[in-house]
Amino acid sequence: MSLEKTGEFGLIERFRRKARTDSSVFMGSGDDCAVLKLDKKRYQLFTCDMIVEGVDFTLKDSPQLVGRKALAVSISDIAACGGIPRHAVVSIGLPRSFTLKKADLLAQGVFGLAGKYGINIVGGDISASPRLVIDVSLLGEVEKDRLCLRSGAKTGDIVMVTGSFGGSIKGKHLKFSPRLEEARFLTENFKVNSMIDVSDGLMQDLGHILEMSRAGAVLYESLIPLSPKEKSVEEALCSGEEFELLFTVPRDQASRIAACARYNFSVIGEIMPASFGLRSINRKNAYSKRKFTGFRHF
Amino acid sequence: MSLEKTGEFGLIERFRRKARTDSSVFMGSGDDCAVLKLDKKRYQLFTCDMIVEGVDFTLKDSPQLVGRKALAVSISDIAACGGIPRHAVVSIGLPRSFTLKKADLLAQGVFGLAGKYGINIVGGDISASPRLVIDVSLLGEVEKDRLCLRSGAKTGDIVMVTGSFGGSIKGKHLKFSPRLEEARFLTENFKVNSMIDVSDGLMQDLGHILEMSRAGAVLYESLIPLSPKEKSVEEALCSGEEFELLFTVPRDQASRIAACARYNFSVIGEIMPASFGLRSINRKNAYSKRKFTGFRHF
Repeated sequence: MSLEKTGEFGLIERFRRKARTDSSVFMGSGDDCAVLKLDKKRYQLFTCDMIVEGVDFTLKDSPQLVGRKALAVSISDIAACGGIPRHAVVSIGLPRSFTLKKADLLAQGVFGLAGKYGINIVGGDISASPRLVIDVSLLGEVEKDRLCLRSGAKTGDIVMVTGSFGGSIKGKHLKFSPRLEEARFLTENFKVNSMIDVSDGLMQDLGHILEMSRAGAVLYESLIPLSPKEKSVEEALCSGEEFELLFTVPRDQASRIAACARYNFSVIGEIMPASFGLRSINRKNAYSKRKFTGFRHF
Repeated sequence: MSLEKTGEFGLIERFRRKARTDSSVFMGSGDDCAVLKLDKKRYQLFTCDMIVEGVDFTLKDSPQLVGRKALAVSISDIAACGGIPRHAVVSIGLPRSFTLKKADLLAQGVFGLAGKYGINIVGGDISASPRLVIDVSLLGEVEKDRLCLRSGAKTGDIVMVTGSFGGSIKGKHLKFSPRLEEARFLTENFKVNSMIDVSDGLMQDLGHILEMSRAGAVLYESLIPLSPKEKSVEEALCSGEEFELLFTVPRDQASRIAACARYNFSVIGEIMPASFGLRSINRKNAYSKRKFTGFRHF
């Protein structure tokens, strides 16, 4: 059987079923980060992300932005769990044709962003590789009562997002700022029942929340915040690597969050019972059934 | 300037100089693992290793052994610091032409070894990639008084190794068992002043200990334990990916360690003042000056 038939998520599920974890693990694979027991008050978060030349970036992109992105995607995972990033290790596979100047720029991208977020780069590995590939593993911490998982959405929750959606491929995917401040603001002041970062596409990542929470949802198409150059709601719903936060909160929290002037939070829908599935309501008030579609590697 | 001129270790040093760490980091990059403060009694260890098709293995190698190796090299780093491995995340870049069967075998290799050492695989990332690449990040723990670093070698220390050296490329590099039991036995029963695992070559990795400890050393060529099929001491001294432990202990510990019947420990030399440099004594009792040579990626 080919990988394409199994699909990226089939493959991940296949691998997950093999994993056995002991009691020191609060939550293994299946969320934005692994959640490890740390002490009485805190969990440790652990995540990794690999970016590959020709898939996640090209050699025409600025090496500094590529290095920056390699770390930013992992910070976004820590943010989605409500935590703060602390320590990273960075593995780099470098083509022999890469120049020292480019390697320096790439490092500047990583270290620059690490400095901004107070992340310690504590180690790494450099290997020769025919294609440029960077893998960042990031440790973080979160107070136990501020941990956000994909599995906590409840019927009646309001579905919300940060920022706007669509056309990330045109530049945002290399330049986005992980929504760390927003996530910490939310978990400090409100009750957040579930959260994920949008890497595969708004629809697909909402699908991850719904699967893990055994819930359904309705989305109001007219409420989806579109990026300045984006005109198609369809595109916005499937656009990968937006790195915005998608979260659900009890109804009484939503209007206070949406009214917050400091950050850009929007209501886009509502959590329903699982039997409802995922549906959207268009501008003409017509329902349509939705599949969890978006970017997949296979 | 090209990467080749700077060299792998020049590049690592260049990156290391950019790294700033806060007081929660006991030891950042520059050793086999990063050492993070955990609690009163223990440090947390953090390491990553990337293996790349065409560099560290070929597609003709068994996918199971390749998966196994990806985790084993990181376990070896934890062993070299005297610790025990705990949690891993695994990033895999998979060619689209890879079959599901091969992917399953690769996963079996990783999970099989993880099971053997009680390691929790808590997460990962799967990406499309033109070449197969696997990066494992591993967390471990070590009691504070059992931490071994490269920097602790003292003049008069005896230089010792586990196992035998030479010809790893013929198979050992894919099948080795990380010397975890040996390392734990040593740090439980003896005073180990410095330790490293031999990934770049015995001479080069001894060089890492000498640089970090500001010391010199003399090696007795006749004492280097050779692998069954290895006849050349020169080859054994430069052979990479042997994944044996190289360590230094106070003189009074050495004979007791060498006499231990349970494991295979050998005396191979002695730590000298830095001004002595690194020299070896051949079978005719003649000194020769040595350079720290071995495998480099660039």
